[in-house]
This record gives sequence, C-alpha cells and structure tokens, in this order.
Amino acid sequence: MAKLRVLNQEAIEGAIDMRSVIKAVEDAYVQKSSGEAVVFPLIFYEFEPGKADMDIKSGYLKGADIFGLKLVSWFGENTGKGLPALVGTVMVLDSRTGMPLGILNGEYITCMRTGAAGGIGAKYLARKDSRNLLMVGSGHQAPFQIAATLEIMEGIERVMVYNPNSLDRAKGFCRKVPQILRNKFLDKYSDDREHYELIRERYEVEFEAVEDIEKAAGEADIIITATPSRKPLIMKEWIKGGTHISCIGADMEGKQELDEGLFQNARVFADDITQAVNVGECEVPIKKGIISEEDIAGEIGRLIMGSIPGRLSDDDITIYDSTGIALQDLITANLVIGKAEAMGLGVVVDL
Amino acid sequence: MAKLRVLNQEAIEGAIDMRSVIKAVEDAYVQKSSGEAVVFPLIFYEFEPGKADMDIKSGYLKGADIFGLKLVSWFGENTGKGLPALVGTVMVLDSRTGMPLGILNGEYITCMRTGAAGGIGAKYLARKDSRNLLMVGSGHQAPFQIAATLEIMEGIERVMVYNPNSLDRAKGFCRKVPQILRNKFLDKYSDDREHYELIRERYEVEFEAVEDIEKAAGEADIIITATPSRKPLIMKEWIKGGTHISCIGADMEGKQELDEGLFQNARVFADDITQAVNVGECEVPIKKGIISEEDIAGEIGRLIMGSIPGRLSDDDITIYDSTGIALQDLITANLVIGKAEAMGLGVVVDL
Repeated sequence: MAKLRVLNQEAIEGAIDMRSVIKAVEDAYVQKSSGEAVVFPLIFYEFEPGKADMDIKSGYLKGADIFGLKLVSWFGENTGKGLPALVGTVMVLDSRTGMPLGILNGEYITCMRTGAAGGIGAKYLARKDSRNLLMVGSGHQAPFQIAATLEIMEGIERVMVYNPNSLDRAKGFCRKVPQILRNKFLDKYSDDREHYELIRERYEVEFEAVEDIEKAAGEADIIITATPSRKPLIMKEWIKGGTHISCIGADMEGKQELDEGLFQNARVFADDITQAVNVGECEVPIKKGIISEEDIAGEIGRLIMGSIPGRLSDDDITIYDSTGIALQDLITANLVIGKAEAMGLGVVVDL
Repeated sequence: MAKLRVLNQEAIEGAIDMRSVIKAVEDAYVQKSSGEAVVFPLIFYEFEPGKADMDIKSGYLKGADIFGLKLVSWFGENTGKGLPALVGTVMVLDSRTGMPLGILNGEYITCMRTGAAGGIGAKYLARKDSRNLLMVGSGHQAPFQIAATLEIMEGIERVMVYNPNSLDRAKGFCRKVPQILRNKFLDKYSDDREHYELIRERYEVEFEAVEDIEKAAGEADIIITATPSRKPLIMKEWIKGGTHISCIGADMEGKQELDEGLFQNARVFADDITQAVNVGECEVPIKKGIISEEDIAGEIGRLIMGSIPGRLSDDDITIYDSTGIALQDLITANLVIGKAEAMGLGVVVDL
C-alpha cells in the first residue's frame, strides 16, 4: 500500500507561485531537449465530436525522478449542468520505485504551467527592451500569461488587451486584472519582501482594452495569443520587425491564431516539434506549404540550454509555439507535492 | 471541484465478490465486441529493460457510462526495498460528464478480473462435464483462477496444481488453498445462504500437487496457465481431445506457456485479437507461422453474445488467450465504487 497526497485546487493555489513554476517549467523543457525526459504518445478520444472529448498526456522526467500523466476531460455541455466543462487530474509517481506520490486537480496546475510557458517564450525570444505587451484573449488564461510575462520582463509599461468577440469584455478584464495579479500572484511573495517589491512595481503597468487590433499589433513588442480561435486573428502585415509572439491557444488540429504568412520570415521555436506540427500553431503554415518542419529553428529547451541561438537580430520576428506537454504538468505537480508536504496541505490517503 | 472516492485494497476486498466480478467482466467483453466499448492504445515504457517498466491501459465503456485508465508500475528491485514490485492505480470517470468518480488501488481489482477471465474462458469453452482442473502456476493469481472456475463449473472434482520450479511450493499451495478460498471468496456470500452453500460444496474438491506434468495435462479437462514463463510448459502431444485451456500468463512479447503446436488444431478465442497477436499466447504460434491471425475463431465477447459458436464438438481442443484489457479493470473498479458507496467504504476527497 502506498501513502499518497490528494491535492485539490485550493491546496494547490496555496502551495505554488509563478516564479517557482517558471523555474520548474524551464527545467522540464531542458530535460526534454537534453534527453533526460520522455513524452509518451498522446491518447485522445472524442465522445461526441465538438461536444465532449478526453485526452491523456503522460511522460517521464528522469532528472526529477518522476513520471505520470494528466487526464483532461472536456464536456462542453457541462456548464448547463452546473459542472465545469474542463476537468483535469494529474497523477505523479516516483520513477525510482513506481510508487504513486500524489493525485492533483489539474486545473490550476495547467493554468500556471501554461502561463509560465508564454512568459518563458518572451524571456528567451523577446527583445530585452520590450515595453508593449499585447494580450490576445481575455479569458481564464490571460492573467496567468500576464503574470508570467511581468515576472520575467523588466521593461513592460503597457499591456494592451484584445478580445476578438467583445471590447466590453476586454474593458472588464482591464478593470479586474490589477486586483487578480495582486491577490493571486503578488501575495504569494509576502515572505520575500525584496521580490514582493520588485513584482509589485512590475505590476504597475497600464492596462488598456483595445478595439483596433491592427494598430495594437503594430505597437506591440510582445504578443501573446490565448484564444480558442480557428482562424487567424493577427495578420502578417500588421507586425513590425523585432516583435515576439508566444502562441498559446492552438493545441489541437484546426486551431489557428496567427496569419500563416507570419511564419515565412519568422524564427520559430516549439515546446515539442512533432506536436507543434500536428496540433500547434505550426500546423496550418506547414500544411499550406509556407514553411516545412525543417524551418522550425528548434525546441525551446535547446534554446534555454544555449545549444541553439534564439533571436539573431533586433529586427527578427520570433514565434514560440507552445502546445503544452505533460512534462510541464508533471514537474509543476511535483513542485506542488513538495511544497504541500512541507506546508501540511492536502489529504494523505492510503491507496 | 469533484468529490471522488479513494479506495485502498482493504476497502476493495470488502466490496466485491467473484460472482459479481465474473458478471461485470462478461459485460465488459460483450460491450467491447458489440462496439459499445473502446480500448485506447496501450502506453508502455521500460525505465530499465527487464528491471523496471510501466504501462497505461485505458478505455471507454459506453454501456457502463464510464471511461478511465489503469497505470501499472513494475519495479523488480522493489522487493529488496520492502516495497511491492507491482503497483497499480485505477482511475474511473463518468463518461456523461467527464468528472472523476474514483481512484482505486489496482492490485486486488487486477487479481479478481484476471481470475474472472480464466473462469469465463472455461464457462464458455470447456465441456460441461469437466471434472479435472489443472492449475499451472501456484503463485498469487492461482487462488483467483481456481475460485472463478469453481464458481462457474459445476462438476469439478479434482484440482491438480503444478509449479514448474518447485513441487514443494505446489504442495504448500495445496495445503493453504482451501482456507484461502473460504476466507477470501466463500465468506463474501454469507448474506446469501443458498449461494454460500452451493459454493461451499463446489470448494470441496481434492487438491493435488503434481510433479508429472505430462500425466496431469493428459488427465485434465481444463488447464489454466498463470505463470511468467517464456518457454512452453504444456506440450501438444500430452493433451487429450476435448480439453480447454485458459492462458493467463502471456501479456507481453516473448512470454509463452503453451507449445505453439497446440494451436494447429485448436479452436482459439481471445479477449482482444490485436493484443493477443502482439503480446498474448497467440504471439509465438503466429510468428512461427503455425497459425495466422485469421485462424483465431474470434473475440470472447462475440462468443458470449452468441454471435459465433464456441466448442464445435466434445473432441475440440479450445484455447482462450486472455491478455487482459483495461475494460475489465474499469468495469470492476466501477462495481467497487458502487458497492463502496452503498457500504460507506473508502475515503471521499475533494479534488
């Protein structure tokens, strides 16, 4: 029998902060690119096309001595039943013994590791002097992307927020986001006054809901796209040289947020090249023959390791295609388990 | 947030009996063969070849409104660390909402559903007048196979037990097994006196440790093989016409318990034909060209449904290649969850 820790969202929120998740996700990327980690094949099943599906992502992080999986269900009609549409569960096991370590609610872990991914793209690819961030999408994921980018980028002064369906929702988001950043992210640093002050200042940016996406895209130094879009929202001719784009939304066939023409002269990186080609933002440009798989500069992990160069000049347009890999979830879940153990969070059960 | 039930081995043992597991596993087989269930691709990874591996088996049972997975770790060197070598965890979710229902220790569920599988093979393929059962293997799985077969077959008088490595261990097993059957299986029926009495009488068989496997195989009406063998233990020329063989041990490439020649004139069934061909007892005879995949008579589910005939005459040698499928685990786990809920067993946690 194994003792394992069961951690719900409340416990998980109490256990981790964006700084430590960014560090963990970078570690996962490096382990993947250096052959210290393995991504197992994805299992995907549609119960009802467009209405209900599930996937199982799994993998092994040798350098963290863990393996495991995340099972995510998406049932679009759940909201009418008072249930969440998206439900994720993460299972982490010890790769030295095969014993289970924890079962975790996957939602907050997914939000944090996905936010971290977008921020890491900016960290290694955006110009250091970037001042204007354009957030495309104002949903659940947007505060995590903004928190991660502000955690990492020193010079951001303005965050433009665009909602492709509703200016009002972008405006509402801009009103609420300073408080969300304070409560959900800044307060985690209250034990580290120096970092708390640093991030408090970083959060003092101007939030601006934008209607004219063409103008906003032209002013942006960094663009993050986090929508469920299936058609391009950002056109090639709007973008100035030197812009970095982190693509978060595309994680299944048919999803697309960028004009495929943008890939023609961009320097493109991905978390997992095969996945980017099959289900990521790279899917459409490759299918349309704008680029081929060989045109992708490399995996983000190799860039972090320093094995390949990132941006070659201040005029490069760089793209980070973040499709989401199980290794991010597993390393973040393992971080949660360690912190929760130290803090006495969660429920320990005999399995 | 979801409320889900965490069930350890003790709770699971208290919740289910062999009769209900046999019924559930038959249901899973029928759902699979009638297209009401889907087996998702297997994920298998070897951490260290021959020393440590893990697999994830998953699937969907539409007829039971569930889907889920079983993750099994095998770490051969765990026994030296005071840990179990084999650890399994089952996760069951509601296929109408995607919400998790339970997390269960996989060990007892695997033992029960595997025992049920061997018994079901005998139920649908052995001659009704079978009197002699030969159990090849006297390990952990043997009592489950015997309990399931006695649950189903009315006329068994003698159970011969063969251990390929040690007559003494077979003898020790024969001394202990009546008490195991009473405590672990018969006592579950104490609320149903009629069934209790029926099974109590069925358990009054003669247990005999055998050294001469050739003679024992020739006398057997039913043979069940449940060893980790990688070479044939039962030779073709030993077997009389009319014998049924349930093959339980072979569940990965290279495992083999039967002389491949036995397949030449036998009527062969499998739980899952692809899996039987790749990792089951059918693997070697097909690789050696003794039979081809088309010579397999069909899936056990189709036989249970009555879509295909089983034994065609009292002289047929029949073989059931049970490789083990996730649907058996999931339906058994779901049975456990239902019973545990009614009995108040396990721990309910917020996830």
